[in-house]
Amino acid sequence: MNPIILDGKKVAQSIKNELRVEVERLKEAEITPKLATILVGDDEASKTYVQMKANTCHKLGMESERVFLPEETTTEELLNVIKQLNEDASVHGILLQHPVPSHIDERKAFDTIALEKDVDGVTAHGFGATTFQLGAYPCCTPAAILQIIDHYNLSIEGKHAVVVGRSPILGKPVSMMLLNRNATVTISHSKTENLPEVISQADIIIAAVGRPKFIKGEWLKEGAIVLDAGYNPGNIGDCDYETCYPKSSAITPVPGGVGPVTISMLLKHTVEAAKTQRASVVLN
Amino acid sequence: MNPIILDGKKVAQSIKNELRVEVERLKEAEITPKLATILVGDDEASKTYVQMKANTCHKLGMESERVFLPEETTTEELLNVIKQLNEDASVHGILLQHPVPSHIDERKAFDTIALEKDVDGVTAHGFGATTFQLGAYPCCTPAAILQIIDHYNLSIEGKHAVVVGRSPILGKPVSMMLLNRNATVTISHSKTENLPEVISQADIIIAAVGRPKFIKGEWLKEGAIVLDAGYNPGNIGDCDYETCYPKSSAITPVPGGVGPVTISMLLKHTVEAAKTQRASVVLN
Repeated sequence: MNPIILDGKKVAQSIKNELRVEVERLKEAEITPKLATILVGDDEASKTYVQMKANTCHKLGMESERVFLPEETTTEELLNVIKQLNEDASVHGILLQHPVPSHIDERKAFDTIALEKDVDGVTAHGFGATTFQLGAYPCCTPAAILQIIDHYNLSIEGKHAVVVGRSPILGKPVSMMLLNRNATVTISHSKTENLPEVISQADIIIAAVGRPKFIKGEWLKEGAIVLDAGYNPGNIGDCDYETCYPKSSAITPVPGGVGPVTISMLLKHTVEAAKTQRASVVLN
Repeated sequence: MNPIILDGKKVAQSIKNELRVEVERLKEAEITPKLATILVGDDEASKTYVQMKANTCHKLGMESERVFLPEETTTEELLNVIKQLNEDASVHGILLQHPVPSHIDERKAFDTIALEKDVDGVTAHGFGATTFQLGAYPCCTPAAILQIIDHYNLSIEGKHAVVVGRSPILGKPVSMMLLNRNATVTISHSKTENLPEVISQADIIIAAVGRPKFIKGEWLKEGAIVLDAGYNPGNIGDCDYETCYPKSSAITPVPGGVGPVTISMLLKHTVEAAKTQRASVVLN
């Protein structure tokens, strides 16, 4: 039997359809959800990313505020910009485009974003609150992976998920989110001994390693579900699609898998933030 | 070959010896590290625990402040007590004894403890900051497990650690800490399918499940390292010591394993907090 192709564009479209309705409703209450993006420096790829995020905002009837800062911005200056956006009641979500120039303390900048505006799920506090299920916004790529799982009704409870990679914005949070959904979770990484054997036990593989075609079909258990969050130059995933496809029962293509859902999750979180912040204003 | 008995009392003693020297030095600089404990209600076991913590403080030359609140204390009242201790510059660490009466929002109370005074590692923010290695104090039982591993020079890099249990103060943080030390980590729990098979692959087992003699020797790989953080009524661990002992290469007894090290870690964190808070006062 051919595997199910997990179509990220379709999942993204269904989220956007819901968001359009919600944004309309919020606007009737005179709230327009607004995402602020901060880009430091002139990286072309990063410029494209923030542009895409702003465009999607506008298509959904949301507002965006784009802050461009020069390459030579100091940590202190960046923190001040973030603090101003934290204070600005018209801004519901804040995204600091990764990576920032290397002289800036990116972690400190991330952790300066107010928890209730951390729609990209990058703060340490947000990671803890997501893990403890306290209602914070999770990182968008892990959230996209869970959204795809839910959209296709894939069963994960009790199943063995192997996450390959342990970054603060992908491997670690997706592990905690799968754990909270009752999967048994193994987190593997560059120091893992005998990775192919570890992967061969997975019912669900999450590839988050950042190496093109790294995971081979021959490592997979027959019928494994493959979610590839890798996005390497040339639109190439972390999984070798050609050999993984025939072994899997469901698989995300690259491009067109996890990627398109990620931006939708960012906007979904921003709309939720607008609703929550509005509710807290009403209560005060 | 007989397994190494991982002697928690010995590990605890060596930490206390170091702390005594550090406390002496801090006192010469007119700083006495002080731990505040809060006990809500009349639970006898909890009373004994806070008493033990206070006694150990005094033996090491540290101060303790014990706050007793009646059973009928509200969440609001408890939060106010915590906020006062957060503000009190003479208090370096705050411990809220778990469990609080069920009408209190324990999570909210934990998360009200200031990050720099969270020496028991219970806040969601502290969990995130520990996971991202930002210098927060980890939960004391996971910290004790790592301390035993280090004391006995057990190698964990690249090894497969299986954690049984996923609580916010034990299973989840110990998983993140082992991951940060380059172990491959599997987190298993009550919904895990075929737990014996999962455990059979572990080079290192962390038992944190709270069920007496739950983990059987026959499930273990020959030569596994067994760290039993269980502490069930009657001083019984989560591992069946009798059958696990002959299969393991190193094992913690219960009692006398992880338990004694846990209080020492609490005091170690309090001394570190006193040093850090003093440094920040000097800087201001």
